[in-house]
Amino acid sequence: MPDPVKQTPAAPDPWAEWPHPTCRRIVAAALESFAARGFHGTGIKHIAQGSGLSTAALYVHFAGKEDVLFALSRRGHVLARELVLAAVADPDPRAALATLVRDFTAWHAEHRTLARVVQYELGALTDAHRAEVLVLRRETEEAVRGLVRRGAAAGVFTVPDVRAATAAVLSLGIDVARWYEPGGRWTPQELGGHYAALAARLLGAG
Amino acid sequence: MPDPVKQTPAAPDPWAEWPHPTCRRIVAAALESFAARGFHGTGIKHIAQGSGLSTAALYVHFAGKEDVLFALSRRGHVLARELVLAAVADPDPRAALATLVRDFTAWHAEHRTLARVVQYELGALTDAHRAEVLVLRRETEEAVRGLVRRGAAAGVFTVPDVRAATAAVLSLGIDVARWYEPGGRWTPQELGGHYAALAARLLGAG
Repeated sequence: MPDPVKQTPAAPDPWAEWPHPTCRRIVAAALESFAARGFHGTGIKHIAQGSGLSTAALYVHFAGKEDVLFALSRRGHVLARELVLAAVADPDPRAALATLVRDFTAWHAEHRTLARVVQYELGALTDAHRAEVLVLRRETEEAVRGLVRRGAAAGVFTVPDVRAATAAVLSLGIDVARWYEPGGRWTPQELGGHYAALAARLLGAG
Repeated sequence: MPDPVKQTPAAPDPWAEWPHPTCRRIVAAALESFAARGFHGTGIKHIAQGSGLSTAALYVHFAGKEDVLFALSRRGHVLARELVLAAVADPDPRAALATLVRDFTAWHAEHRTLARVVQYELGALTDAHRAEVLVLRRETEEAVRGLVRRGAAAGVFTVPDVRAATAAVLSLGIDVARWYEPGGRWTPQELGGHYAALAARLLGAG
């Protein structure tokens, strides 16, 4: 029997950062519009309409649509980083990898719309905002790379090139946001399980 | 020594389908604008300006910006499919996989801008155009799945779940378009070589 705690979906409410319900309505409406018509095709009026607010009310909370995109992007990257850091805290590299890939994959399936917008619109952020997001991304990558290196040093993983293997492990999870559709062959958790097994093989620990 | 024929970059000129130089200028300008400001943020005037044409001249060749996006999307998917079909024609599953992953990965690194636009703007196509593109995509996926199945039947690959393994092999290559930047650690061909080795492990043939 699988451990019921381990079966709990890894992803918390992505909007928990914004306890104010108006903020949550704004980011949800913005996400929907960015996903449907892109950042550049979204006007502040689309976000206002989608959230049932006036544009004036919207400006109380956000400086503009780029500011909402940044909030979404930062939130998505923070959640992914938290999940990865929690997984790599396991001292057993094999168990850490299994948790990491399962949760990271399931998260990208569950939050595919957020993940897509965050990836596809990275270039629409201001330089300062993009730099902040890239720091979060680098921390996530370094946590995964650290695990690969640690497992290789312990003789649990066999890795000819740590950077290429790290990129591949991350790609497996991230690309799920592009192609996953609910109601298909696998639940997010089931897909996470398959991918965890594949990632173990990829690192020579299958 | 590596075989010099095998070292030739896999990707032909992506615009070879359009021998008319005006068409090539239009699709190149549209690609640049879609990549910079998204499909929804691109006006027909951006494409006209970028290609140095009047909008009237543009309409001689394309019905509108969606028609140009469709041309780009179809071309990208046809090229990817051709490359995959050429690879899987090798009767040796292990060699076919190595060629497939190397070329598919290198192609996505080389043509990352085209690949990104094609992926990110799939939802902007008309239903009829998207259906046509999805047929091409399905043919590509089925060619990869057929190879995985053939290798498993021959005892060369060990694959607990053919569909999950196929999705993972495709993701490795496709996601390269998202993160690859030239001038970094690897040339497209070098990255393709690393990923070919990782894909072999993933299928239990490492």
